[in-house]
Amino acid sequence: MSLPTEHQKQTASAWFETLRNRICAAFEAVESAVAGPNPASNGEPGRFIRSAWQRSPEGEAGGGVMAVMRGRVFEKVGVNVSTVWGEFSEPFRKEIPGAEKDPRFWASGISLVAHPCSPKVPAAHMNTRMIVTSEWWFGGGGDLTPVFPVAADTADFHAAFQAACDGYRADAYAEYKAWCDRYFFLPHRGEPRGVGGIFYDRLNSGDWDADFAFTRAVGEAFLDIYPRLVRRHMDASWTPEERQAQRIKRGRYVEFNLLHDRGTRFGLMTGGHTEAILMSLPPDVAWP
Amino acid sequence: MSLPTEHQKQTASAWFETLRNRICAAFEAVESAVAGPNPASNGEPGRFIRSAWQRSPEGEAGGGVMAVMRGRVFEKVGVNVSTVWGEFSEPFRKEIPGAEKDPRFWASGISLVAHPCSPKVPAAHMNTRMIVTSEWWFGGGGDLTPVFPVAADTADFHAAFQAACDGYRADAYAEYKAWCDRYFFLPHRGEPRGVGGIFYDRLNSGDWDADFAFTRAVGEAFLDIYPRLVRRHMDASWTPEERQAQRIKRGRYVEFNLLHDRGTRFGLMTGGHTEAILMSLPPDVAWP
Repeated sequence: MSLPTEHQKQTASAWFETLRNRICAAFEAVESAVAGPNPASNGEPGRFIRSAWQRSPEGEAGGGVMAVMRGRVFEKVGVNVSTVWGEFSEPFRKEIPGAEKDPRFWASGISLVAHPCSPKVPAAHMNTRMIVTSEWWFGGGGDLTPVFPVAADTADFHAAFQAACDGYRADAYAEYKAWCDRYFFLPHRGEPRGVGGIFYDRLNSGDWDADFAFTRAVGEAFLDIYPRLVRRHMDASWTPEERQAQRIKRGRYVEFNLLHDRGTRFGLMTGGHTEAILMSLPPDVAWP
Repeated sequence: MSLPTEHQKQTASAWFETLRNRICAAFEAVESAVAGPNPASNGEPGRFIRSAWQRSPEGEAGGGVMAVMRGRVFEKVGVNVSTVWGEFSEPFRKEIPGAEKDPRFWASGISLVAHPCSPKVPAAHMNTRMIVTSEWWFGGGGDLTPVFPVAADTADFHAAFQAACDGYRADAYAEYKAWCDRYFFLPHRGEPRGVGGIFYDRLNSGDWDADFAFTRAVGEAFLDIYPRLVRRHMDASWTPEERQAQRIKRGRYVEFNLLHDRGTRFGLMTGGHTEAILMSLPPDVAWP
């Protein structure tokens, strides 16, 4: 199969940046809209702070931009974009499709983790990426992690991603929902991480335009539904007991990310940008 | 080489229980001795709560006892002993010395992690164990994790373990100190976990009595020095900024345990007792 052109790579990486801009704007609008009696709503609305990083001092291996906001609705939310290239070192070539044939790679993506102040507002994760080795593929997904699951939130979150999937392929939603349930599971706790969503990887149908359109639709679905779920619950008050339940639930999130998450472990083991990778960790956590 | 006798196994596992009893008594005495102005010293002295667990419902694969105390000096301290036996499943036989030849194993040990309330009091870890497959060995060590290192504490902690090592073999301390420094290191942060101590594994000199005596001496060294370090600082007050520094330092502890610690990862991947394994995680943590 032919590899994506430079124009296609640039188009994908520009999209991830556009999506980042739109998500950051939507989250900042949420910060401005909260009223109360949310105990954290008295402060100023949070705003994203962006900082750029490079893989090498001269920037010839690419890099990324971290955007972090610490606000009154979002206790900590990170939205990272990165576009990196280079060669996989020997030990990793067997693990990456197409890298044994040719160790060169190019990768671009967006990754987001939101930890709301309120235990009534679900945490969420979204990530999409495009990878090129001697093969190419898209991957990503989104999933929701409420402390106290609300059936209507779960249904609406899944419906948004189902619509994105249905526009791509009839059986995509069933497949990617099941993949998400398998992936975001803590075997040592016998617990799912949250209420699911979708997960897909190594997506290459042979039609780059269609696969890229699906990846855009996944990002759009998240941008549509998650701020609506946040707004639905952000003005509710909470008790100290609910807050403590949130801090314990966040401990499970840490366990998943450090024990199991392939992206986190792979990034840390391969000398990725530690601060950007670990921005996913929650701000305030308990293992009581 | 000949394998340890049942009597030797029983002697080792009885020692681990005796050491647990003596450590718990020493820590409870510390809880009773704190005066103030430690902000946490107003509560009642903490006491250990023990709970037993078994690897199988009938107990024919062994089990252990968790002892946990949540007190006014020790925010959370867990002391676990376990004696377990069985057969390694296929995927792990290659990773364990002697298990490819015969998959049966017997293992007994003590494991301790202390997270003090005060950021002025260092956290600590100690573990010793005896393993029997078609080979046998001892392993263990102890290390200190202060938020704000104090040179005298570090010197005294190391001196205690050096004395234990010097009684065993002239070059043991240099070797096991260096091993500890290599092992308790967070490569993704470029940081050591703490100020070190000793670490040893696969210790089999051919003289079981000598190796067991050294393992006892390691436990005794910890029992001697750590409560003294705790008493040295437990009455000091602290600021909110010092507490926050402690919560962040604890995040590094979580990162090490979940990303790198062989015992934690091995235990969780092989269906160990999750609650006992993750008792090492600190009660209150920040990734701000």
